[in-house]
Amino acid sequence: MRTQVAIIGGGPSGLLLSQLLNRAGIATVVLERRDRAHVLSRIRAGVLEWGTVEMLRKAGVGARMDREGHVHQGCLLSSEGRMFRIDFHEACARQVMVYGQTEVTHDLYDAQDALGATILHGVGDVALHDLTSDAPFVTYTRDGAAARLDCDYIVGCDGFHGISRRSIPAEVRQEFEKVYPFGWLGILSQTPPAAEELIYAAHSRGFALASMRSPTLSRYYIQVPLSDRIEDWSDAAFWAELKSRLPEAVAQGIVTGPSIEKSIAPLRSFVSEPMRWGRLFLCGDAAHIVPPTGAKGLNLAVSDVHYLYEGLAAFYAKGDAEGLETYSQKALARVWKAMRFSWSMTTMLHHFPDFSAFDRRMQATELDLLESSPSARRVLAENYTGLPF
Amino acid sequence: MRTQVAIIGGGPSGLLLSQLLNRAGIATVVLERRDRAHVLSRIRAGVLEWGTVEMLRKAGVGARMDREGHVHQGCLLSSEGRMFRIDFHEACARQVMVYGQTEVTHDLYDAQDALGATILHGVGDVALHDLTSDAPFVTYTRDGAAARLDCDYIVGCDGFHGISRRSIPAEVRQEFEKVYPFGWLGILSQTPPAAEELIYAAHSRGFALASMRSPTLSRYYIQVPLSDRIEDWSDAAFWAELKSRLPEAVAQGIVTGPSIEKSIAPLRSFVSEPMRWGRLFLCGDAAHIVPPTGAKGLNLAVSDVHYLYEGLAAFYAKGDAEGLETYSQKALARVWKAMRFSWSMTTMLHHFPDFSAFDRRMQATELDLLESSPSARRVLAENYTGLPF
Repeated sequence: MRTQVAIIGGGPSGLLLSQLLNRAGIATVVLERRDRAHVLSRIRAGVLEWGTVEMLRKAGVGARMDREGHVHQGCLLSSEGRMFRIDFHEACARQVMVYGQTEVTHDLYDAQDALGATILHGVGDVALHDLTSDAPFVTYTRDGAAARLDCDYIVGCDGFHGISRRSIPAEVRQEFEKVYPFGWLGILSQTPPAAEELIYAAHSRGFALASMRSPTLSRYYIQVPLSDRIEDWSDAAFWAELKSRLPEAVAQGIVTGPSIEKSIAPLRSFVSEPMRWGRLFLCGDAAHIVPPTGAKGLNLAVSDVHYLYEGLAAFYAKGDAEGLETYSQKALARVWKAMRFSWSMTTMLHHFPDFSAFDRRMQATELDLLESSPSARRVLAENYTGLPF
Repeated sequence: MRTQVAIIGGGPSGLLLSQLLNRAGIATVVLERRDRAHVLSRIRAGVLEWGTVEMLRKAGVGARMDREGHVHQGCLLSSEGRMFRIDFHEACARQVMVYGQTEVTHDLYDAQDALGATILHGVGDVALHDLTSDAPFVTYTRDGAAARLDCDYIVGCDGFHGISRRSIPAEVRQEFEKVYPFGWLGILSQTPPAAEELIYAAHSRGFALASMRSPTLSRYYIQVPLSDRIEDWSDAAFWAELKSRLPEAVAQGIVTGPSIEKSIAPLRSFVSEPMRWGRLFLCGDAAHIVPPTGAKGLNLAVSDVHYLYEGLAAFYAKGDAEGLETYSQKALARVWKAMRFSWSMTTMLHHFPDFSAFDRRMQATELDLLESSPSARRVLAENYTGLPF
C-alpha cells in the first residue's frame, strides 16, 4: 500500500492532521493500535484554547462544538478560604471553549468517515523504516498478516508510549523531564458542576480542581500521593476530601453522585528534541507531555498539527519544503512556553511535600500577586487562553 | 535620657525615619554601633525605586540625588549570546534612579546634622527592655559608661545581625529562609560603565551584572561558588570572567581598571514575622533580607519606613494608633511581593549547580517569554520600578 502521509496513531492529533490533509487533497493513512470504541472511551481534558477552536472549525469539525460547547471568559483561583476570578476577557480579550476531548475525537471520526479517509484499527508491531531516505515506509501486522505502507512522510501521533519517538536514534534525541511527587485522582459524575467556571484550588491538604464537561456532567480532581490506588478511594471519601479543599461556600453547594469514571494519573513534564528526524515528524504527546494543570495537552498537539499541516500543504502545493524544515524549531518554541506555563501553574498550586516554609510563602505570594495585579493576571490569561500560533 | 522614638541603627533606614520624624516635630535618638566613617564606607546597591526617590524628596534630602543621580528608563537582559531590553517607560510608564546607597546615607547625615538631630555613634551592649509595657527603654554603653534611654517606641533598624529582631521572643517569631548555593563577587572601579543601563546576564558559567554608580564609576558582579575567597580573584581574573559571561559586543567595549573595592557576599532570602512586637518595630534588614538581584534591599527598607512613619505621625498628631497596629501586616504584604520578585529574578538568571536540564530550559523560557511578551515585560517592569506603597 502507498500513501503520501502515513500517520501513526488515531487519537485527536492524528485524526485532525489527517482531516486537514484530506481536505487539502493530500492522501493519508492512519494506523491505530486500538479499536475505535477504546479510543473514544479515553477521558481527557476539556478546555480548548481559541486557536484550537479555530483549527477545528477550519478542519470542518466545529459545528457540534459550537452548538454544545461552553465558552468560558474566566476561571477561579482559590487558596485556603479566599477565592478570586481571572477575567480572560478583561485581561486579554480572549476566551476558551469547554468541550471534552472525547467529543472532539468523536467529531473527527465522523468527519473522517464522511470524507472516506483511511483509518486502520487494530494495527500491531508497527516499525518505521528508512526515515532519512527519500522513501520511508512503515511495516505492521493486522488481522494476523504482515503489511507494508510506503509514503513520502511519516507523522508520529502515537503518544508518549508510542514507537515514533523511539524510532529517532537515541544519540540524536535530547530529553527533558520533570516528574512531580504526586498524581491526580479524577472522577466524572453526572451532577451539575460546582460553579459556572473552573475552580483551581490551592490548599495545604493538596490541590483540587472543580471542572465540568457540560451543565450536567462534572469533572473533579484532587492531588493524591503517588502511592495511592483507586481502591483506596471510595466515592464518599473522594467527595469529602474534595470539599475540604474548596472554599466553604463552594463546598456547601457541591452536588455529589456516583462516579462514572475514576482514575489516577501521575504528573510529568517531558520534552524530546528534535521533533523531526529525516522524514519523520512528531506531534503532541509523542514529543512532549505536560502536567494537566492549565489543560495544555490537547491544545499543544493541535498547535503542532498546525505547524506541520502548513508545512505539508506548502510542500504538496508548491514544492516549498521550508515549513517542513523549520517544523521542529517552530513547534518547540511554542511547546516550551506551554511547558513553562503548565509547570508554573503546577508549582504554584500544588502541595509539595519537600517545600520549605519559604517556598510555600512564594506559592501564596504568586497568588497574591495575581489577585492584586492586572498585569500578572494578563500574563496568566494570555497563556491560559493560548499564545498565538 | 528620654526621647519619643529610639532608633537602633544609623544606616539609611534609621536615618531616613529619624529625618522624617524630626521634620514632623517628633523627637528621636539614633544609636549606632560604628562611627560615621564606617557607615559611609559600606558599598551597597544603587538603584532607587521611584517611591524611594519621592520619599527622599519628602524627607528634604533629594536635592543632590536629583542633581547627580541618573534616571534609567530600562534595563538589559542577556542570555548566552543574545540581549534584549526591558523598557520600563513603555511597559508601565515608570523609571528608576541610579544613585548609590552610600550617597543616600551621606545626604541623610548632612540633613540630620542641619536639623541638629541626635545620632550617637560608638554605642555598644544595646539591650531593649519592657517592650510590651507602656514604658520601654534601651540600655547601652558608650565611652565606657552605661546609659539608659527611655522612650515611647523603639525602632529596630539594626540589620540582619542586630539585637532588635532577637529581642522578640523566639516563640513569637516565625522565620522564613532560603540560602542560595552561590555568592556575588563585586568590584567597584573608576571606569566608564559597559552600557548606559544595567545589564543582567544569564550564562552557563554563571550570572553577571554590569552596573554603575556614575558615568565614571562602574560596579560589576559575577556569581561565584560560596567556597571562593577574595584572594582567589585577581583583578585580571575578574575582568576575564566577567567578559566571558557578557554578550561579545558588550565584552569588547568593557574598559578595565584597578578595583577600588572588592568583596564577596552570599545570597539569601529571609523574612521574620511579625515586624512589630509591643512597642518595638522592625524596619529593613532587621526583618528581611533579599538577594541583590533586582536591587530591592534599600527600597524595601524605605517602604517599611514609609508605613511606620505614617503610623507614628498619625499617633503623635492625632492619637490615632491604627497605623501602628497595622504596621506589621501592611509592611509584610509589600515585603513578600518584593521577596517573590528578588527570588524569581535570582532563580531565572543564576546557574544553579543542582538544576536539571529541564530546570535550565525553564530558566531560558522565562527569558524567552520576557523577550516576546509585552505583558510579561510589564510585570517585571512594575516590580522592578517598585510596586505602590
